[in-house]
Amino acid sequence: MHNIQEMRTAAILGASGYSGQETLDRLLRHPGLEVVALGSDSLAGAPASALDVRLNGSLPRFVPNEDALAAGADVVFLCLGNERAAAIEPPAHTVVIDLSGAHRLVDPDSARSWYAHAPGAWSYGLPELYAPEGNLIANPGCYATAALLALGPLADAVEPASVVVDAKSGVSGAGREPKASSHAGFVLENVSPYAVGAHRHAPEIAQQLGFPVCFVPHLLPVRRGLLATCYVQTGSDARELLEDAYAGSGIVRVLPEGTAPELARVQGTDGAEIGVFADGATGTTIVVCALDNLGKGAAGQAVQNANVALGLDETAGLRLAGVLV
Amino acid sequence: MHNIQEMRTAAILGASGYSGQETLDRLLRHPGLEVVALGSDSLAGAPASALDVRLNGSLPRFVPNEDALAAGADVVFLCLGNERAAAIEPPAHTVVIDLSGAHRLVDPDSARSWYAHAPGAWSYGLPELYAPEGNLIANPGCYATAALLALGPLADAVEPASVVVDAKSGVSGAGREPKASSHAGFVLENVSPYAVGAHRHAPEIAQQLGFPVCFVPHLLPVRRGLLATCYVQTGSDARELLEDAYAGSGIVRVLPEGTAPELARVQGTDGAEIGVFADGATGTTIVVCALDNLGKGAAGQAVQNANVALGLDETAGLRLAGVLV
Amino acid sequence: MHNIQEMRTAAILGASGYSGQETLDRLLRHPGLEVVALGSDSLAGAPASALDVRLNGSLPRFVPNEDALAAGADVVFLCLGNERAAAIEPPAHTVVIDLSGAHRLVDPDSARSWYAHAPGAWSYGLPELYAPEGNLIANPGCYATAALLALGPLADAVEPASVVVDAKSGVSGAGREPKASSHAGFVLENVSPYAVGAHRHAPEIAQQLGFPVCFVPHLLPVRRGLLATCYVQTGSDARELLEDAYAGSGIVRVLPEGTAPELARVQGTDGAEIGVFADGATGTTIVVCALDNLGKGAAGQAVQNANVALGLDETAGLRLAGVLV
Amino acid sequence: MHNIQEMRTAAILGASGYSGQETLDRLLRHPGLEVVALGSDSLAGAPASALDVRLNGSLPRFVPNEDALAAGADVVFLCLGNERAAAIEPPAHTVVIDLSGAHRLVDPDSARSWYAHAPGAWSYGLPELYAPEGNLIANPGCYATAALLALGPLADAVEPASVVVDAKSGVSGAGREPKASSHAGFVLENVSPYAVGAHRHAPEIAQQLGFPVCFVPHLLPVRRGLLATCYVQTGSDARELLEDAYAGSGIVRVLPEGTAPELARVQGTDGAEIGVFADGATGTTIVVCALDNLGKGAAGQAVQNANVALGLDETAGLRLAGVLV
Repeated sequence: MHNIQEMRTAAILGASGYSGQETLDRLLRHPGLEVVALGSDSLAGAPASALDVRLNGSLPRFVPNEDALAAGADVVFLCLGNERAAAIEPPAHTVVIDLSGAHRLVDPDSARSWYAHAPGAWSYGLPELYAPEGNLIANPGCYATAALLALGPLADAVEPASVVVDAKSGVSGAGREPKASSHAGFVLENVSPYAVGAHRHAPEIAQQLGFPVCFVPHLLPVRRGLLATCYVQTGSDARELLEDAYAGSGIVRVLPEGTAPELARVQGTDGAEIGVFADGATGTTIVVCALDNLGKGAAGQAVQNANVALGLDETAGLRLAGVLV
Repeated sequence: MHNIQEMRTAAILGASGYSGQETLDRLLRHPGLEVVALGSDSLAGAPASALDVRLNGSLPRFVPNEDALAAGADVVFLCLGNERAAAIEPPAHTVVIDLSGAHRLVDPDSARSWYAHAPGAWSYGLPELYAPEGNLIANPGCYATAALLALGPLADAVEPASVVVDAKSGVSGAGREPKASSHAGFVLENVSPYAVGAHRHAPEIAQQLGFPVCFVPHLLPVRRGLLATCYVQTGSDARELLEDAYAGSGIVRVLPEGTAPELARVQGTDGAEIGVFADGATGTTIVVCALDNLGKGAAGQAVQNANVALGLDETAGLRLAGVLV
Repeated sequence: MHNIQEMRTAAILGASGYSGQETLDRLLRHPGLEVVALGSDSLAGAPASALDVRLNGSLPRFVPNEDALAAGADVVFLCLGNERAAAIEPPAHTVVIDLSGAHRLVDPDSARSWYAHAPGAWSYGLPELYAPEGNLIANPGCYATAALLALGPLADAVEPASVVVDAKSGVSGAGREPKASSHAGFVLENVSPYAVGAHRHAPEIAQQLGFPVCFVPHLLPVRRGLLATCYVQTGSDARELLEDAYAGSGIVRVLPEGTAPELARVQGTDGAEIGVFADGATGTTIVVCALDNLGKGAAGQAVQNANVALGLDETAGLRLAGVLV
Repeated sequence: MHNIQEMRTAAILGASGYSGQETLDRLLRHPGLEVVALGSDSLAGAPASALDVRLNGSLPRFVPNEDALAAGADVVFLCLGNERAAAIEPPAHTVVIDLSGAHRLVDPDSARSWYAHAPGAWSYGLPELYAPEGNLIANPGCYATAALLALGPLADAVEPASVVVDAKSGVSGAGREPKASSHAGFVLENVSPYAVGAHRHAPEIAQQLGFPVCFVPHLLPVRRGLLATCYVQTGSDARELLEDAYAGSGIVRVLPEGTAPELARVQGTDGAEIGVFADGATGTTIVVCALDNLGKGAAGQAVQNANVALGLDETAGLRLAGVLV
């Protein structure tokens, strides 16, 4: 496919953070995208190997983020904080994928309340369920991706008032910046809920489903990966709805009856696993989704969205194969 | 208090398993109980140090479990598997604390269905909520203890059909016997639900609350400790009910508003932490309980039950103090 | 390259163990090798997905190991225990890669002492240093690979009596079979040396270097990966010797001065990192090698050896690219 | 003992850091010491529970460190950074235990080179080997304590040029302040050496032994605890020397032949374990010491030193008992 196809060019802003580095990882594997600009204000001027010794001379040196934005790339990945991303002026005729939360909420009040600025003309891109449109694409949050993959196909079939999403994430979800809550002395041999009733991914999930859910995230002593256990009341056959939604997907795998998703199986990949269970005692349906917060929950989905927007093979560059222990 | 008090004697059956070793740990700290028999069929004849080099010559050698049972101790701790515990003939005039699940369910059908034998005349001992009576005491399961500490005081105040208990446990909850699911190659960097809709602690929770709950346990890459996140619909003030229930407790700590329980803070202790939260978006009340599955979830509670039955200070021997990092 | 090249066929014996599964992972990525037989006595008859849900219908069902051996594949990977591997009768005209220790030691006394059988006509295959010859190739041990990558190029330049190899390995090094020492309740928040002065990889290292070293392995709370810290006295420039040895290697990376190997950077890959340091206080040279015990320490090297023996691109199928967080 | 004894008073400066919190933990258990001042510049004015919800109203509020120093306590624990500790003017007639490195090195050049200031009249306090003298006591470093416990009794019996100390520490050794190297995203599933040939504990070990050793520390994915594997050439019976040195110690346990120290067994305690091994292949003697970097490696030893200086029971307040899983 890609032999006769012209290479497109890509720039990464915030390339030295976790999601930036992972986006770079996917682009290095991508047959149709070439990295032409690595933006990082803190590493500007340094060679790519300053980020990681695994990177070598074939990559350009880091430049300030604004230079990377102006580099004329066909696609720009914004791997920045919410405020920085909100302030970006997207270049014309360029596909821009925003991995931050800045452009996910479309309701003006909600956007202002959670992200302190008005929403713009960005589309929400979770290709299996909500196809991105246009050049400006808001990449979903990691928790939202897991919750939506589990619940999106059931949105019309569940009692809205009943939905609980109990999510558990590895520590890389909080970014590379050191803080007390990501200190290994706090994380190891620990687990605790955080931002209970106050996490930015809750309104994002609600926006896409059309109703609010009770969402509680927990921090795990795990480097990467995320599991969302979703509890719903439904009269429909949830398994059938989910299997239909992801039939033929090379990214989302609905597991056979009785098989539970395992975070370890999706770690370091851009795939997702979904398990469906019935609780006989209460009639509750339990849908569990596992994915890698840096993969399908961030960089993998960002590259997938870029592929869709550019008309490339949807899974090009993604980490999907393999059966590591 | 204990200066003028006669020492009572204790025997541990299954002393070489996790809960047995932890029970021994508490008894070694106990001012009113002396260990006179250490039962272990696999270690019979060996000195106590064969279990752990931290143990020394002041303890008796291991004997077969049936010898430990017949040693005439005032209190016997059964730290055995369910089947072994079910087959024990309790000596007369002896306090027996069964840490297995064998005697927890009182409904004959339920007991037979989950434990393959009829229930006997044992009382369920979770002293803060369900005071043990008589000499034969069934010590609650670790998950059940956490769920009940969180939900017991709310049992009359919640909509029964709505209750979800999403629990997360460290690996010691599965016992010392090596198995595929406790292999560190499976546990590390992993998390997954198990026994969904089919865990023995679910009917136990239902028995005590009076209604079934949707209970899903998950295995964490943590050595010890357990966190239960409980979701309920209630019109009452859950915080007030919980603070009333545990006012003055030296074991259960209801945390101030906005503070979340942390597994690390209860690890290696016999205490428990409870946090109460409201989810504004859905009106759900979230009650989170953290405890150590081997402490308040097993050995700590067993010794507490023994103390109650023997008329000793309820917290004697327990690990409750300290502020380790 | 591989368009016009005939595909060769491969069989894996012991495909359901850790090293078997990882070998399968590499073969699924291999452009020139096709898996025609998956041997496993325990899974015989089951589809490949019985091992892992990530595997699908394009793979053959599991067959008994002896059937896999007799399947006529061009290359056979023995991912068996030492005794099973020692008992295998290699088919004629077949490349056989033995991932066990059975055929590593060539001295009859040593082989009998450590592996209870006489050595055969196998060659030791660590391609960067000891090129495999012939069809029967003994794949090095994981610890031995790390120690030899660090010390092999220095063998003629160090004082033999002074060499210490302090190694630290993740738990997958001990195989998938559950045992007390791989129980997560033992492994988490723990580290301890084992088999001190009595590990089978010590004579293997000595055989290749020409002199014995003091080798002490430690078990880490890590799923996969291994780090060997080697202490030597030398009058030569160790960095220069190592850089010369691995110049142009796509597998072994000698890090710049001041940069230490990190296990995380080689985890899940078939590469290795080497760091070289001088201790000013004592004049000791410290060479540190990090690799993945299941990658360069097992399956990656096995496929590399097969590539060499079959005349294929040495790194075909290997996991070498990427910059995962 | 302590019934008829007057209570002494204690102040902690830097009480909100890791070593400060652990010192507080020991003092809360201490029958002869009462905490009268909790110093913390960042928490000044806040109640003790601001540090940890396990602390309650019986403790004084935090005050600025200089106020804690001036509180007139009988013993002051300096749990500060090196520079802050170096600048402290010790009150007269007060026992001061400095847990930082500021006062450990006595050679002026060495002290200036490693800690940027001249040494004062402090004595080095590792009671089992180097009894503290006077009121001003420098508490040893965690690595130094482990290395010295293993090597101190052998100092006159080993070939100095041959000594290697390969140490592995949990992440709490680096303090509570968040930094890139303590980020759980870096620590989990990782291990790497650091400060190779440049760690401040190396000159400290050399000072006490009388000769330099090759010391390399590694960071482990472990919350707390430290293991030092020491390699020496000796013609003496190292086991005998070590058993003699620690005969009757309630803190240091020399393990029986063939038994290896385990970090998990000393975690959360103030004890230490020592194992002695011979490597047949090279004649090297291997001495392994495990301790908790926050226990015997910091707060436990600090309280032990205070006990010695105040004439109290040497182990009062220490965490030494127990057999937690």
